[in-house]
Amino acid sequence: MIEEKKSPENSDLTKTGKSGLIKEKAAGFEKFYKNSITGVGEDASVVKLDEKYAVFSSKLFIENVHFDLGYFPLKHLGYKCVAVTLSDILAMNVIPTQLRVNIAVSNRFSKPAIDELMEGITICCKIYKIDLIGLDISSSSVGLIISMEAVGQANNKTMVNRAGAGEKELICVSGDLGAAYTGLLLLEREKQVFKAHPDNQPDLSEFDYLIERQIKPEPRFDLIDALKKEEILPTSMIHVTDGLASALMNVCKASQKGCMVYENKIPVDTLTCNTLRDLKIVATTIALNGGEDYELLFTVKQEDFEKIQHIENVSIIGYITEPEEGYMLISNDEKVIELQAQEFSGY
Amino acid sequence: MIEEKKSPENSDLTKTGKSGLIKEKAAGFEKFYKNSITGVGEDASVVKLDEKYAVFSSKLFIENVHFDLGYFPLKHLGYKCVAVTLSDILAMNVIPTQLRVNIAVSNRFSKPAIDELMEGITICCKIYKIDLIGLDISSSSVGLIISMEAVGQANNKTMVNRAGAGEKELICVSGDLGAAYTGLLLLEREKQVFKAHPDNQPDLSEFDYLIERQIKPEPRFDLIDALKKEEILPTSMIHVTDGLASALMNVCKASQKGCMVYENKIPVDTLTCNTLRDLKIVATTIALNGGEDYELLFTVKQEDFEKIQHIENVSIIGYITEPEEGYMLISNDEKVIELQAQEFSGY
Repeated sequence: MIEEKKSPENSDLTKTGKSGLIKEKAAGFEKFYKNSITGVGEDASVVKLDEKYAVFSSKLFIENVHFDLGYFPLKHLGYKCVAVTLSDILAMNVIPTQLRVNIAVSNRFSKPAIDELMEGITICCKIYKIDLIGLDISSSSVGLIISMEAVGQANNKTMVNRAGAGEKELICVSGDLGAAYTGLLLLEREKQVFKAHPDNQPDLSEFDYLIERQIKPEPRFDLIDALKKEEILPTSMIHVTDGLASALMNVCKASQKGCMVYENKIPVDTLTCNTLRDLKIVATTIALNGGEDYELLFTVKQEDFEKIQHIENVSIIGYITEPEEGYMLISNDEKVIELQAQEFSGY
Repeated sequence: MIEEKKSPENSDLTKTGKSGLIKEKAAGFEKFYKNSITGVGEDASVVKLDEKYAVFSSKLFIENVHFDLGYFPLKHLGYKCVAVTLSDILAMNVIPTQLRVNIAVSNRFSKPAIDELMEGITICCKIYKIDLIGLDISSSSVGLIISMEAVGQANNKTMVNRAGAGEKELICVSGDLGAAYTGLLLLEREKQVFKAHPDNQPDLSEFDYLIERQIKPEPRFDLIDALKKEEILPTSMIHVTDGLASALMNVCKASQKGCMVYENKIPVDTLTCNTLRDLKIVATTIALNGGEDYELLFTVKQEDFEKIQHIENVSIIGYITEPEEGYMLISNDEKVIELQAQEFSGY
């Protein structure tokens, strides 16, 4: 018999934090093969094969944890799961090429519902030229669970991880931040309105961009292609899943460096700004701590400054510093604020 | 808003069956790369890299679907999940070498509970020399969910799939069958007894072997090694996850062949036989339709008959026939019975 109680030891988890727990668990494993280029703590795992590397990523999506079917169309959900899984490979500066999918569904899902989910998966695979190399569908007692694994191939010279950022290098980020979380706030608000007044048809058309950023994020293949075209090899890279602050700190920790970023350089879309103002929320807070933007954060050498200008939708938001200087933000009113990252809040 | 109703369309799923549904879904995907050696319908997926192949498998384990923590110690659960995931790679005649793990836990799991689970994972990785190349731990609203991906490397000449069985070839199976399911029956019975009389301490010591087959199955690395040593290259291979009947039919369907197997050749352990007799269940039924033995079923050319004798714990249970002859069992009283496989019953 297993005892499953909410014991006082539970609080250890909050103390250790997610990355601490993973690090601790990973340390318990021996290493047997020279060709296992470890992936724990990175966005994807790497195995060397002859001179080529196979790069894997995997993601678990659980109903009511990662998505709410109350406002998430199944087709978009399928699309988003693929996009997120591929994004992990892109964050290594590698183009993903294959995908495995495992789906577990309870009997409240009809065949047409599964069709819709799979249609979204198929569309995303088609757009980004991904081969499905595995698919399993099984039963679940607890709603919808989706597990996906993406694979890419790389050579050692162009693969980028989180650990290579050097002092005085430029910190860049693709696209804009905070829109996905703002979209989520709107959807949550409409859900409450709908509960209270089921006859109200919500009109979210003016917020299309924000809803789309939440419901249908796009993996940044375009950036990886553009970097290659401009012959820029980033020194470190990560995708922004839990807000800019956490991404920045993960790069700095892995690289054993500090950072200085400027609030007025953080890219936030105008609609995001205006919507958050109406909601009485500071946009920078959401850019720093909101989740699911799936933009790429990367560092480049100063000599690449000119080349970076040739790439659309990339912002230089600051630079890498010595580790003693910590993780700092210069606010719009020129105050120096230490960055905080929220971690494992969902535990 | 998503409509989630138990609609009449649900029944379609039962009609289509699991493999039909997967086939249908897989057909919707385009193929873009020559190096994607498709894995849908196989135990693992294959990607070619230069002259080497990376072989992946993935599994999803969900509380109250794949395991009941009422009688499953977390340490054994961790061990079993790894063993099952590795078994998928072995079933391609490939030695797995790397593993990725994603775990989602609800807050009823304490830190020591996660420690215990991870300990089982670590032990299995150590025994079978597996490198952990990825680990993620996240939150779940619905109990414990584990997703694992294993990776192996192979060259084209020794990799075996389900589709190569030829007429008159020998059908072989490793170990014995039905014990894991018999162990599950005992555990389920004890759970009911415990519910009715919580003070009763169950004594299952005489059933150790059966409980162990259910709780701690071993992946058959030994068979893959032995086949290599004897220089036997199987013509087809699969692992026995849902009973012998379903494994046999999957090999025959993929190879477009029939089969003839003998009831008296099917390996069933004496304790399994005796226990099932006491439970008034026919042992052959459980060997054919019980699950989770994770033994390997494979076919070899007739000329390998002598060599097969050198390998311990392998039974020759029949031979491959022309497709028109169907999937046949010669019973102990010499009746010819058509094999039936249960599929997707858990949907």
